[in-house]
Amino acid sequence: MIKFASRMDQLTGSAIRELLALASKPEIISFAGGLPAPELFPVEEMAKASAAVMEEMGQTALQYSSTDGFAHFRQIIVDRMKAKNTIDTTIDNIIVTSGSQQGLDFSGRIFLDKDDIVLLESPSYLGAINAFKANEPKFIEVPTDEGGMIMEELEKILEENDRVKMIYVIPDFQNPSSRTWSLERREKFMEIINKFEIPVIEDNPYGELRFEGEAMPSLKSMDTKGLVVFLGTFSKILAPGYRLGWICADGEIYEKYNFMAQAASLQATTIGQLETAKFIEMYDLDAHVQKIIEVYGKRRDLMYNTMLEEFPAEVKFAKPTGGLFMWVELPEHMDAAELAKECLKENVAYVPGEGFYPDGQTKNTFRMNYSMMPEDKIVEGIKRIAKVLKANI
Amino acid sequence: MIKFASRMDQLTGSAIRELLALASKPEIISFAGGLPAPELFPVEEMAKASAAVMEEMGQTALQYSSTDGFAHFRQIIVDRMKAKNTIDTTIDNIIVTSGSQQGLDFSGRIFLDKDDIVLLESPSYLGAINAFKANEPKFIEVPTDEGGMIMEELEKILEENDRVKMIYVIPDFQNPSSRTWSLERREKFMEIINKFEIPVIEDNPYGELRFEGEAMPSLKSMDTKGLVVFLGTFSKILAPGYRLGWICADGEIYEKYNFMAQAASLQATTIGQLETAKFIEMYDLDAHVQKIIEVYGKRRDLMYNTMLEEFPAEVKFAKPTGGLFMWVELPEHMDAAELAKECLKENVAYVPGEGFYPDGQTKNTFRMNYSMMPEDKIVEGIKRIAKVLKANI
Repeated sequence: MIKFASRMDQLTGSAIRELLALASKPEIISFAGGLPAPELFPVEEMAKASAAVMEEMGQTALQYSSTDGFAHFRQIIVDRMKAKNTIDTTIDNIIVTSGSQQGLDFSGRIFLDKDDIVLLESPSYLGAINAFKANEPKFIEVPTDEGGMIMEELEKILEENDRVKMIYVIPDFQNPSSRTWSLERREKFMEIINKFEIPVIEDNPYGELRFEGEAMPSLKSMDTKGLVVFLGTFSKILAPGYRLGWICADGEIYEKYNFMAQAASLQATTIGQLETAKFIEMYDLDAHVQKIIEVYGKRRDLMYNTMLEEFPAEVKFAKPTGGLFMWVELPEHMDAAELAKECLKENVAYVPGEGFYPDGQTKNTFRMNYSMMPEDKIVEGIKRIAKVLKANI
Repeated sequence: MIKFASRMDQLTGSAIRELLALASKPEIISFAGGLPAPELFPVEEMAKASAAVMEEMGQTALQYSSTDGFAHFRQIIVDRMKAKNTIDTTIDNIIVTSGSQQGLDFSGRIFLDKDDIVLLESPSYLGAINAFKANEPKFIEVPTDEGGMIMEELEKILEENDRVKMIYVIPDFQNPSSRTWSLERREKFMEIINKFEIPVIEDNPYGELRFEGEAMPSLKSMDTKGLVVFLGTFSKILAPGYRLGWICADGEIYEKYNFMAQAASLQATTIGQLETAKFIEMYDLDAHVQKIIEVYGKRRDLMYNTMLEEFPAEVKFAKPTGGLFMWVELPEHMDAAELAKECLKENVAYVPGEGFYPDGQTKNTFRMNYSMMPEDKIVEGIKRIAKVLKANI
């Protein structure tokens, strides 16, 4: 009989995935995904960048390339991290990945043996939880409030557990909660991390999508001991179709990522790196991001205002200041997964929150995406969900 | 202090990688890589396919897509496996991967716990050995002769070891040895596999690059129990720059690959799948492969004939009937890694064979690639290596 590795017991089909499959029917207004708005993709510009690459360096574009990535592409990444995340680094600290999910996967494999502890915000990104699960770790959820991770709780957990190998955080417009840490919390976090010397994975896919207020410095920019690994991606500021993300890390940690990348994937797409670099040389990525921010900001406003009007008073939610998601907390007796089935009958979908908790025990939350749906559908979809909520409150 | 997962002890920088870095200098005639000839890439055609995709479905090309891959791209793969590998399958048995290396990585993770045994040909592909190492398995090398794996030896090993979880083989133009299994050996192999019911990873990157003789049926085409996983790739028949390969598997094994792909990478490149599919619709991939075969076949002839003339009689090598590589066996007292340093002084490079053996103990072999170098450099490079060999025989 075929015997699989024990890690495979951790990876299973999820109810959420089945729901997402149902939600993909065209008649359904779906807030369930986390996709960028495709009508904002710079299709014509990317086509021109692509044509230029094939014209100028077609053979190079179609050939193998290095594990860490093209030097000029890594320089673009370094420059962007300097401008957007106040990170001072060099191309020797960057590895280009096949999307940020690969960076998450590598992170778990580099740091986690079976039964090692990984700390994360409660709730946290379900794709990261899934990636880490393949290493059979134990998860400890650090309590959060509206300002993100509660630092006193983090410190207490670190004092009480000596097998914590890694801390995974999304300090900017977190998925799913959209919460952002204050400067004070960031400073406190780094103080604690430096004391315990635990590696940190700082995942930052949404940081540039800020609708109001000032950008916060990244944890990596405050990292004096080389403990923070910064994960970035082009998926939300340009396009996810190329699968291009990156890792920024220091010293021995960087070396381990490089070894892992060699063994697991050889390299990210050659042609995708060259075309993305060419686009950024030929056009104004900042202006493009500004356009995205304006559209998403309007959709956020519309979703939030419609929720204020339509949702029962017992349902809690905050107005996101950036990112892609609205996070909703129901009264404790309500089960968001059960209600999702009723919503599907009304042809509207969200993601029940339980997948964002490693233990799956929190049933009264859900996540809605506002980046993907046009304005009229946002209003109509929220009304339909409100109807189901009112009937079950 | 930072503690890494124990698997990371298995992944280290290799002497071979350092040598390859040296070999990449422009003044060096390098037979060390395994790269396709870039002058054969259909650059203009791919540019047209790319423009057509951006014109017809640009938004789709830049968006996320599914874990298993586009249905029409998987159908192209199914049709090609039917035509080239006599495999009867459906798109529900295919997962598109970010290059075949990802398929190797997933395979190790799905089947191998620490100290589980993986069997492979001696020698075998070093990229596969590296990928599997991340799961801390034990390797047992199955002895081979000029016809590939020796089936009596395989059977004996399976009888004596009850912790064999996976068998990795490259039956067609193996990397590094270029050996191909006869039909009789394939049949015997499947008989043994069916008896012991051990999963098999059949890696087939080179099968279509046959210079003479008839194509052999794949192991997967003889698989009646769903034990064989077939790994294919577009890297050698079209271009590696997109990083596109695939897995073909059945039943529960397929499901595990799907779960692993969801957790580890979400999906392969969207735009790359659409552009590759478009190229295959617009142009004649078979005619393109025929062109590659003609050029590589000539280079193989030239390398082989020059070796016959120049190499000392004590050095053994066979004429490959397909693939990219010439495999060389030196007298036992000679150390190919040491001689590689002398060759580098003569501005010529090959890959010492030790990396192709998991235990690294076989020192008297090396691999040369003939697909990448133009004819005059092949002759000159072989002469330089011959000079070093003669001085050390």
